[in-house]
Amino acid sequence: MATEKVKVLGFWPSPFVMRARIALNMKSVEYEFQEENVMVSKSDLLLKSNPVYKKIPVLIHADRPVCESLIIVQYVDEVWASGPAILPSDPYDRATARFWATYIDDKWFPRLFAILLSEGEEAKKAAEESGEGLVLLEEAFTKCSKGQKFFGGERISYLDIALGCFLAWTRVIEKMGNVSLIDETKTPNLFKWAHHFCADDAVKDVMPDTDKLYHFSKFLVSKVKGSAAQK
Amino acid sequence: MATEKVKVLGFWPSPFVMRARIALNMKSVEYEFQEENVMVSKSDLLLKSNPVYKKIPVLIHADRPVCESLIIVQYVDEVWASGPAILPSDPYDRATARFWATYIDDKWFPRLFAILLSEGEEAKKAAEESGEGLVLLEEAFTKCSKGQKFFGGERISYLDIALGCFLAWTRVIEKMGNVSLIDETKTPNLFKWAHHFCADDAVKDVMPDTDKLYHFSKFLVSKVKGSAAQK
Repeated sequence: MATEKVKVLGFWPSPFVMRARIALNMKSVEYEFQEENVMVSKSDLLLKSNPVYKKIPVLIHADRPVCESLIIVQYVDEVWASGPAILPSDPYDRATARFWATYIDDKWFPRLFAILLSEGEEAKKAAEESGEGLVLLEEAFTKCSKGQKFFGGERISYLDIALGCFLAWTRVIEKMGNVSLIDETKTPNLFKWAHHFCADDAVKDVMPDTDKLYHFSKFLVSKVKGSAAQK
Repeated sequence: MATEKVKVLGFWPSPFVMRARIALNMKSVEYEFQEENVMVSKSDLLLKSNPVYKKIPVLIHADRPVCESLIIVQYVDEVWASGPAILPSDPYDRATARFWATYIDDKWFPRLFAILLSEGEEAKKAAEESGEGLVLLEEAFTKCSKGQKFFGGERISYLDIALGCFLAWTRVIEKMGNVSLIDETKTPNLFKWAHHFCADDAVKDVMPDTDKLYHFSKFLVSKVKGSAAQK
């Protein structure tokens, strides 16, 4: 099955789409990327492949869709099991990586984007809470990495992908919101980790350009705040 | 490691705690259950073991805590790997089970409890949406089970646990909200599945008594609606 055709439905600014692409790159899997500008429209293939959420990313492997980025990463790890491991091998380390990945999606990421998409006191509070979340993630990094480059050791793995996909957005949001999130003072280990992550072979070609993302984020803000003003 | 001491911090009405207990029962793992009446207080052990969420369930295995019910279930499956498998063996089936389990937690369960904890139009809308969710889950069951008793075949597995832990609550909420959710007409396959699930050896001793849960739910509603009225 591992040799069947692979396709990713995605949109270049999406951090979640990046996860699927990094996982495939780690396993040296060739895939077709179908750009889905979800700000404008959604293809029939996307609607058919993810009828519940109608969201990107979708991985289509051997004509069968897999949805939800963290589930896709685990699927890629299991199907192409002979490539470099993405999930840690030890069950406790796996549980820890899954815990923090879920924390990132459920708690941290919504606060990060609230810096961008809300205003005044709410944006200020979101910046504070994002910073507190990063301090927790810094502590998790220190425990998990045991002095090595990445969360799981000397190579990127599941939790690196889960958090690292937000690095370009974090830089853009720092600039847009005039805040400092990942820096040498508050999160020195994550600061170093971010450099290692962005330079990784599986990552560097799918990490969006910060300037391009900055312009996209201005468009996104105007669209979200514009539609909020119309309500 | 699999022979080390196992403890579950939980509270009897919690569907999420049930997940951890069913997984341990499936693997015939003996464990100590520490009742945490989180409506009243939280033990120091709970606060220390789950400092991020301060929530049950926590599985403590060899003095190390594992949090979040679906992560606990996967951990139990991986540590006691020689027992009956909980996750399906095929990567695509695993991805499908993970997708629907996440759907249950993120989308369906909040709507189910909104029937109980909201009022008027909001409760009515929640009942409709819960029903729509169950129709999706009925379709998923039909596809996954391929005519067998459970989502994954002739034995309970991951997705059975993820949904089945809500069965007692579903019965109580049907009674409290005067609605029908899992019934022979709208979800005939889930209706039959529910009977099989509740009769399973790994399940029957940890499934809360419906009458006891009904009284607890009245207390919960008065507490939640009471504190909402005070705001």
